[in-house]
Amino acid sequence: MESERFKRGTERLSEVDSTAGENVIASLDAIAPDLGRYVIEFAFGDIYCREGLSLQEREMITISSLLTAGGCEPQLEVHINGSLNVGISPEKVIETFIQCLPYTGFPKVLNAVNVAKKVFAERNIKVGK
Amino acid sequence: MESERFKRGTERLSEVDSTAGENVIASLDAIAPDLGRYVIEFAFGDIYCREGLSLQEREMITISSLLTAGGCEPQLEVHINGSLNVGISPEKVIETFIQCLPYTGFPKVLNAVNVAKKVFAERNIKVGK
Amino acid sequence: MESERFKRGTERLSEVDSTAGENVIASLDAIAPDLGRYVIEFAFGDIYCREGLSLQEREMITISSLLTAGGCEPQLEVHINGSLNVGISPEKVIETFIQCLPYTGFPKVLNAVNVAKKVFAERNIKVGK
Amino acid sequence: MESERFKRGTERLSEVDSTAGENVIASLDAIAPDLGRYVIEFAFGDIYCREGLSLQEREMITISSLLTAGGCEPQLEVHINGSLNVGISPEKVIETFIQCLPYTGFPKVLNAVNVAKKVFAERNIKVGK
Amino acid sequence: MESERFKRGTERLSEVDSTAGENVIASLDAIAPDLGRYVIEFAFGDIYCREGLSLQEREMITISSLLTAGGCEPQLEVHINGSLNVGISPEKVIETFIQCLPYTGFPKVLNAVNVAKKVFAERNIKVGK
Amino acid sequence: MESERFKRGTERLSEVDSTAGENVIASLDAIAPDLGRYVIEFAFGDIYCREGLSLQEREMITISSLLTAGGCEPQLEVHINGSLNVGISPEKVIETFIQCLPYTGFPKVLNAVNVAKKVFAERNIKVGK
Repeated sequence: MESERFKRGTERLSEVDSTAGENVIASLDAIAPDLGRYVIEFAFGDIYCREGLSLQEREMITISSLLTAGGCEPQLEVHINGSLNVGISPEKVIETFIQCLPYTGFPKVLNAVNVAKKVFAERNIKVGK
Repeated sequence: MESERFKRGTERLSEVDSTAGENVIASLDAIAPDLGRYVIEFAFGDIYCREGLSLQEREMITISSLLTAGGCEPQLEVHINGSLNVGISPEKVIETFIQCLPYTGFPKVLNAVNVAKKVFAERNIKVGK
Repeated sequence: MESERFKRGTERLSEVDSTAGENVIASLDAIAPDLGRYVIEFAFGDIYCREGLSLQEREMITISSLLTAGGCEPQLEVHINGSLNVGISPEKVIETFIQCLPYTGFPKVLNAVNVAKKVFAERNIKVGK
Repeated sequence: MESERFKRGTERLSEVDSTAGENVIASLDAIAPDLGRYVIEFAFGDIYCREGLSLQEREMITISSLLTAGGCEPQLEVHINGSLNVGISPEKVIETFIQCLPYTGFPKVLNAVNVAKKVFAERNIKVGK
Repeated sequence: MESERFKRGTERLSEVDSTAGENVIASLDAIAPDLGRYVIEFAFGDIYCREGLSLQEREMITISSLLTAGGCEPQLEVHINGSLNVGISPEKVIETFIQCLPYTGFPKVLNAVNVAKKVFAERNIKVGK
Repeated sequence: MESERFKRGTERLSEVDSTAGENVIASLDAIAPDLGRYVIEFAFGDIYCREGLSLQEREMITISSLLTAGGCEPQLEVHINGSLNVGISPEKVIETFIQCLPYTGFPKVLNAVNVAKKVFAERNIKVGK
């Protein structure tokens, strides 16, 4: 059922991305409401509700993919928050980015760490020494 | 010590990528031996030997990044093998690729699944129904 | 209804990509059947069945996006065939690629034209002088 | 003739991109005037003046390519304006972006819709419900 | 004059890419002759004939850009040959690729070195120890 | 020795990127200090200290790669400064970007020229007519 996918997608989105995700959907309302619906139904209702990986693993994959794609800073911001929301530690977020280093080079890793810096500051998180 | 990094990198490479990784290094010997040395020292000696993530998590991040970068089929082949070598199940390799779908679109996921298909066939692995 | 999306997606896929598309789905059967289902349900059942653009316009957008992404030669082959199937002339396929030139540079356009060359040869199509 | 290409390129640029395009050229004057000249002569004088596609089709291809490339927000802004200038409806601009979804994934489509949002606001355009 | 750009582009192409470049142009003749003409007029007649950089510097920039773009192996093959043709040593070609390492990561550098390996073998060139 | 690589990397970084580079390292101190250390040890201590290319050639390759990657504006800013620091003229920086045009298309070249414009303004540099 469409409504079934939408319902479970909304719940999953709320669990992962909380307010940040809802803001993305709301911001699409006036210009591309179907796009917001696909985010909920397909990305969250279909993909994020699958079995076989934990939510933490899904977020770790997501931020690795967004870092590598480049130019996805707004989405990276949402999903660094999402990673923390599902229980990944801030240190592990940074470690995930560092693991991408041999495959993507420094610039993309530096850009992702800068987004993490902003998110950590907003959440009053301290990492490192 | 350089030799320390090279030694632990060689061990880690052997643990993760086994023959496939060693073949990559050997193939560089006559044309760019320093590049092979950097793979061992930096990618494996520095990054893969860090704490904070399990080897399985590192491989999961690596194949997510390689899928997203695109055009990295030879490296994806090495690291799908690496993923299986460190104990990720074939089903979980495929599930990792599917998690990238909302962020990268279908073509890159289809390309990665095709490489997995080849690797699974070579290792006599059956997945799916 | 899920089955509704799958049904209309199958019809649309068959209309656009014919045998080539069906082969892609079939090739996923043993390794990632859900991925094949998403191609049908989401790409074809949801997106390709939307109103607001003709099928010819959708294929023109698709091949422009695939050319620009790079490394999507297998998908470009499917959708150059798809473009011809929905009535875009071979000359217009080439012209679409040439329009991408200022935005992507020569290498990606040359790669796409090479795929077109192969498709046109298979279909016994002659273009140019 | 060089001057012939420059002349027809200037006219085409003015037809498509109006003030926005002229501003890009003007901004290059002090730092890279030849680059501005190539935009006019090659992109607009050569490519945009070709036969075989309507101006609306050319703009639709251009914004599909820019969305897919990523990181081209300034150029996307110019060509969303260009799309509207040559008579593509705002709804069709959004629909073009949505057609890219299966091929590029959500982040790039969301980024492009955000640029459209800005352009539509500046032009006092309302879309959606 | 168009013919002036075409003439000097043909000469420059012949100087840089020799037979390999001419083969690319010839292969476009039946399917996209204008694309071949733009390669000559714009890439070689306009850009490669500019002052301010030596031909060796232009080829070094070109192979750095092609390596970074990814998926441009056919063009990389032409321009590794081009680099050697204008007098860049094989060792310097490899060193150029290694300089890209911190910015692009290992996979793209490995892919480029593999193309160099093929070109060097065809030209009977030995590098390394 | 690790400390040897770090020491020579720090010197090279200071020679090339001066304050800008040091600011990048300092900004990583509280969130990802090891990443800063890898920039110094690997990018500058290993790669930038190699023989076979002049520092000017290394910077020219770096800015060509960063332009082509896209989305690396912060790193491009550091290395346009670096290029000027090692003695590349402002005109040659722009010419390097223009050489990338046939391979990357206009948008990436325009984005890079815009970063150069900012750097040149900060350093009170005038180019062009």
